[in-house]
Amino acid sequence: MAELRQDPICGRWVIIATERAARPSDLALGRGEPKGGFCPFCEGNEDRTPPEIAAVRPGGGPSNSPGWRVRVVPNKFPALSLNGHPSAPVHSVGHRRTAPGVGTHEVIIESPRHAISPTQMPPEDFGHVIATYCGRAEALEADERLAYVLIFKNVGQEAGASIEHCHSQVMGVPVMPRRVAVEMERCEHFHQEHGRCLFCDVLAEELADGSRVVAQTEHFAAISPFAAAFPFTVWVLPRFHTGRLYDMSGAQMGEVARLFQQTMARVEVCLGDPPFNYAIHTAPTAPTQRQRECYHWHIELIPRVTRMAGFEWGTGFYINPVEPETAARYLRDVPARQVALKIPRHADGGGHEQHPRS
Amino acid sequence: MAELRQDPICGRWVIIATERAARPSDLALGRGEPKGGFCPFCEGNEDRTPPEIAAVRPGGGPSNSPGWRVRVVPNKFPALSLNGHPSAPVHSVGHRRTAPGVGTHEVIIESPRHAISPTQMPPEDFGHVIATYCGRAEALEADERLAYVLIFKNVGQEAGASIEHCHSQVMGVPVMPRRVAVEMERCEHFHQEHGRCLFCDVLAEELADGSRVVAQTEHFAAISPFAAAFPFTVWVLPRFHTGRLYDMSGAQMGEVARLFQQTMARVEVCLGDPPFNYAIHTAPTAPTQRQRECYHWHIELIPRVTRMAGFEWGTGFYINPVEPETAARYLRDVPARQVALKIPRHADGGGHEQHPRS
Repeated sequence: MAELRQDPICGRWVIIATERAARPSDLALGRGEPKGGFCPFCEGNEDRTPPEIAAVRPGGGPSNSPGWRVRVVPNKFPALSLNGHPSAPVHSVGHRRTAPGVGTHEVIIESPRHAISPTQMPPEDFGHVIATYCGRAEALEADERLAYVLIFKNVGQEAGASIEHCHSQVMGVPVMPRRVAVEMERCEHFHQEHGRCLFCDVLAEELADGSRVVAQTEHFAAISPFAAAFPFTVWVLPRFHTGRLYDMSGAQMGEVARLFQQTMARVEVCLGDPPFNYAIHTAPTAPTQRQRECYHWHIELIPRVTRMAGFEWGTGFYINPVEPETAARYLRDVPARQVALKIPRHADGGGHEQHPRS
Repeated sequence: MAELRQDPICGRWVIIATERAARPSDLALGRGEPKGGFCPFCEGNEDRTPPEIAAVRPGGGPSNSPGWRVRVVPNKFPALSLNGHPSAPVHSVGHRRTAPGVGTHEVIIESPRHAISPTQMPPEDFGHVIATYCGRAEALEADERLAYVLIFKNVGQEAGASIEHCHSQVMGVPVMPRRVAVEMERCEHFHQEHGRCLFCDVLAEELADGSRVVAQTEHFAAISPFAAAFPFTVWVLPRFHTGRLYDMSGAQMGEVARLFQQTMARVEVCLGDPPFNYAIHTAPTAPTQRQRECYHWHIELIPRVTRMAGFEWGTGFYINPVEPETAARYLRDVPARQVALKIPRHADGGGHEQHPRS
């Protein structure tokens, strides 16, 4: 018998329909063959992107030249732009409300070599990526024109990636996105009633129960959310309370980078290198005191192994054919040796057969 | 410069980013080659589905035998089931809320021959389909265990179709879906303030403006919604006020069937037979007096020509690379002759070269 579950954070109901399931291998969609050919994001091709906004260059050196580990550049085809618009007034004609497309759209190039997934980088490089996320979030949140800053990644064509080389995108948008507004509202309501953070409460329950825990470290946890809308969704979140990604120490950045990278490796082992997305959910850019107290940042990782169809578009209701407890068990059960084997130990990639290009 | 637009009905903001656009032909994803092989939905294979719930048999004849134009059968792999559950109490343990998977899941087989899209049926057959939708909606809305009944269709694998033969699905769910709740709330609020239906107001504005109108008949209209989240989205809705699909005459069913079928033909001509979904949005099953007054049913047709990615999952915010006015113009400009050519005039299909199997 199927079960309905309600997400405690956003209030969305999902159908957990395990009769239709599915071992992980039945779900595999695959990313397709690597494309090959010229890549504008590889080291040496710095002149093929707009000039860099920021970069990690452990050995120093001039901007827009080789020697970097991470580069941040403007998106060449931005969906939004800050040019010449000091603010974003909403304009109404009858029922038609519009606002100018004011915002930012950056690309974070995450590896000098042609890696496709973050699991193909040595852990210290993925640590640089997380530190770069923190830096961009902090810098952009200071811009009063932006209501929200989202960092997200698309891996594989089925997940919306148009360029194969491992990169994330940062978008600063001038209005509060619906999903964030709904979560904020529920978190504020809970905080008002109970004086506590809803996420902290949910996480404490999850760690006590254990059945949906994928892995944990001193300061972070990876869990299968109780009412996941998609098979093998994972949340990675701090065990300490904070709504802002960059409210952590350098050591904690390294800690969450390792946990998250290993979690992605577990997902890739289980599902055979699926296309996936992740998005970092943080508090709005100019939170009120209460919003600051009640939100809790987290990364949401979504392997793209099922397709949205008419039911989902029509209702905002989702059918997940894999119980989150089952997904968590599969992910936990990936042997540590297999996780370690997927991730190169050195910047030269160490000759891993799985990733000849890494 | 991109523009943000807010959907007047559901309040969602979208980015209309036309710099990234795109002639319709650039968007074509295609449905892939027809699969061939055995089809359990074709006439003559009635014993390969569960026994029928309803059927249209203009010449009479026994159930589960040939001679039908439309058949309704239970889904062989239902996501929800009514068996043995008189009600659906919500159960909470800590933050974890669940409800039994009580509901219905039916399949409407829409053509005795192996059509893939509704445009491959003679108009009177698609009229039978619309009449069947009305019949199932009315029958299921009487069931007190269901909070909402959704009718939807998936055409093409990219749109989530697992069986190629033209069919729709009907799901009755025990809790109100998020999307419907949000629309209801906004419509109720508007009705309370202005004493009018929000949809009627929006439609009057659209018909007066004209730039997003695709086609209209005496009682119905097809429009590109002002803040469409996806390229070439079309709404078909009644020009008279009603929240319930089945509140129309037989002649009106034929009228909306023709308009909607011709609209699908326009979309297929513009985008080269894309995968698509449609969903019929109606009022909840047991509406209050105000809900009855303030909701307005409509069909939402979504060609699947762009892919959801991390930005959309992370925010509920969408980027549409085609201005709705541009989509409407392309759709309007499809010559009537091309629309007529796509749709067979007789049940034998009339030897249309485009659809050798219809």
